[in-house]
Amino acid sequence: MKKICVLGLGYIGLPTSIILAENNFEVIGFDVDHIKVDRINNSDAVIQEPEISSKLKKVLSEKKFKAVKEIESADYFIIAVPTPFKVNNLEKQADLSYVWSTVEFISQVLKIGDTVILESTVPVGTTEELARNLELSTNLKAGKDFFVAYCPERVFPGKIFYELENNSRVLGGINSISAQKAQELYIKFVKGNLHLESSIFAEMIKLVENSSRDAQIAIANQVASLAYKVGIDPYKLISIANEHPRVKILNPTCGVGGHCIAVDPWFLVESFPEQTELFKKSRQINDAKPYQVLNFIKEAISKWKLSNPNSKCKMAILGLTYKPNVDDLRESPALLIAQELNKIAEIDFVAVEPYIEPEILNKKYNIKTEKLENALNDSNIIICLVAHNYFKNLKNLLLKDQIVLDFCGLMHEKDYLNLEATKTINFKSKYDEK
Amino acid sequence: MKKICVLGLGYIGLPTSIILAENNFEVIGFDVDHIKVDRINNSDAVIQEPEISSKLKKVLSEKKFKAVKEIESADYFIIAVPTPFKVNNLEKQADLSYVWSTVEFISQVLKIGDTVILESTVPVGTTEELARNLELSTNLKAGKDFFVAYCPERVFPGKIFYELENNSRVLGGINSISAQKAQELYIKFVKGNLHLESSIFAEMIKLVENSSRDAQIAIANQVASLAYKVGIDPYKLISIANEHPRVKILNPTCGVGGHCIAVDPWFLVESFPEQTELFKKSRQINDAKPYQVLNFIKEAISKWKLSNPNSKCKMAILGLTYKPNVDDLRESPALLIAQELNKIAEIDFVAVEPYIEPEILNKKYNIKTEKLENALNDSNIIICLVAHNYFKNLKNLLLKDQIVLDFCGLMHEKDYLNLEATKTINFKSKYDEK
Repeated sequence: MKKICVLGLGYIGLPTSIILAENNFEVIGFDVDHIKVDRINNSDAVIQEPEISSKLKKVLSEKKFKAVKEIESADYFIIAVPTPFKVNNLEKQADLSYVWSTVEFISQVLKIGDTVILESTVPVGTTEELARNLELSTNLKAGKDFFVAYCPERVFPGKIFYELENNSRVLGGINSISAQKAQELYIKFVKGNLHLESSIFAEMIKLVENSSRDAQIAIANQVASLAYKVGIDPYKLISIANEHPRVKILNPTCGVGGHCIAVDPWFLVESFPEQTELFKKSRQINDAKPYQVLNFIKEAISKWKLSNPNSKCKMAILGLTYKPNVDDLRESPALLIAQELNKIAEIDFVAVEPYIEPEILNKKYNIKTEKLENALNDSNIIICLVAHNYFKNLKNLLLKDQIVLDFCGLMHEKDYLNLEATKTINFKSKYDEK
Repeated sequence: MKKICVLGLGYIGLPTSIILAENNFEVIGFDVDHIKVDRINNSDAVIQEPEISSKLKKVLSEKKFKAVKEIESADYFIIAVPTPFKVNNLEKQADLSYVWSTVEFISQVLKIGDTVILESTVPVGTTEELARNLELSTNLKAGKDFFVAYCPERVFPGKIFYELENNSRVLGGINSISAQKAQELYIKFVKGNLHLESSIFAEMIKLVENSSRDAQIAIANQVASLAYKVGIDPYKLISIANEHPRVKILNPTCGVGGHCIAVDPWFLVESFPEQTELFKKSRQINDAKPYQVLNFIKEAISKWKLSNPNSKCKMAILGLTYKPNVDDLRESPALLIAQELNKIAEIDFVAVEPYIEPEILNKKYNIKTEKLENALNDSNIIICLVAHNYFKNLKNLLLKDQIVLDFCGLMHEKDYLNLEATKTINFKSKYDEK
């Protein structure tokens, strides 16, 4: 039985460890955060993900998996550490310090025949640099004595276990035999296609996937800006545009968050400035979105104040996570908006966020929370930031004459297009006033 | 029976006239090009489109349709004239002179109760301007005495009749009653949804649809540039990236042509410069693509010359139209590339273009054509520019060691992903050479 050592027990490392253990590998999970190691060994899954608690408990009790504080020898090392960015001259660059620290750990135990697999998102060329660094610190030859491959994950938080098993995957070796070594591992639990390619190919495809997604979101945000400019509901415009057989515009949101899409394009821009002008522009548009939303909110407050000069404006913010139906606040534009609103003296606001513990929001971010119905009943202005399914019934809960600013499509009836073939909408026109 | 007058008998006006006649309206088609009017009345369809000849012959013989040189009174006027662009300070602006000339014709015969429908693509606000211009030249009141609506078409050349009938459509009135007047007409032959909206909404949605498509193409071209930069086949990269459940990147081509997608984004950029930065960047990237392709071709020629210093390089160009499987050369990037190659003295090239008469290419563009097999047999370098189905068998026709530069995905086996679940590809690596 092959032994696998997974380095980094976060959103990717822990589910990957569990799925490998379920497929009868002997798996250890190494992390420098000793508190996290202890929690995991006590069946605390650390991250929120459907099924993870029961799965973790099972593989721990069957002794197929344990978390460790000291590196151990293994046949495969899977690196799943964070690769955040650092800001340099207004542009963002990859911070690979966590990746390089794994080199120190792995080189202590690396032996002939082992395979090192990098899963973290990295700039193009990093896997070959990893191989060179391992060679320097071990005196073994990469591609011959040991093998190195880049095998990016493609999973969706909330569906991680399903997608780890079912998505196809690119296995990028620094040479063919390295890709084949990766294949021997992944073929045991991946039902999707396995594409054996070079590490450069695999690094590029991962960054291109997320950058193209970011650019798709920028298209949606650009369309929303145009719609706002002429006073049209962007969600209605886009849903009708998408009836065109060759048009597919995403739904605009209050910005792009999370650890991938808002970060990865910078790794490409950094390495290939001339080939990434569109991706850089997309990043700028998406990064500007929460500030555009803030301006709309401030305008609405000013307008409300004109009719209510002696009252304090009460506001409800719906949603704080970086996307719907998850508990993840990383780089969340909704959270950024709430934190900025916190600085405005003339309003009182509460947030409604069913996925995060109220104490965390209160203590860590100084944000007051409230239950949905209470928040709605006590607010002059309602701001929709995240389209959690939990808010689906919103329209029926609103009071008369409440001001609603919707930046995630919650107020838009997605089903209305199926109701009747032909719609008649009355709109005001200056041609009726003459 | 309502009488319809269609102004402009081109790619949209003529098929629309025919479909209205088929639906038992009395239809006249007006055009200032008298030669075209005569040809149409003699059953010459003027444009290439499946079924158009037999359909035209039928409605002419049944006397449901005729082309005319003088405007006549009617209940509905449908304007389907070209709206090209003119270049102003390096940016492109809409040239609406054809639209304004229709105002002069229509105002000669416009009477109380008539409806004027604009179908040509125009900048936001043009329909209201059209209404004002008609008011000025008739002394009738728009929205009350006569009605004005903007009803953009969404059809795909090659599938025009199917899409005229089946696509949903936005009917944008200058006021509600104008939209309803349009509905009374379109409901007779459109099976898709009819959305009654303002003219501003309808103008915006048409421009947004084509601009978002242009931006999607720019994403594909950006990805192709990145792939070329690191020596990866962009078509392979994209087809594997598209196995990702949330990624859909279009296939890169040699540029964007035609009369819509390469033009319409400028109409938005002109009116809304601050809200269209991404669309402007997309236009620039897509406009640069044929010149990038030309550079790759010139590099290939130079490389070939190094090994063959005393021979003249023979080249075959596959495809000249602006997209696959049509006869349309308007704004074609492939044609632009061929015309630029014509200026290079050290090569001999022939084009293969099954959709255009050889004499037209020879006389009008000075381009020599040849049959596919002859062209392939007699060429050192083959350049794929347009993925006509006619070229599908290309791989099997190539000679040994022929240099092929593929800028439309013709050489890429689109089906290979279904052949086997797991692929092993041998690639060269510096880690194998040590």
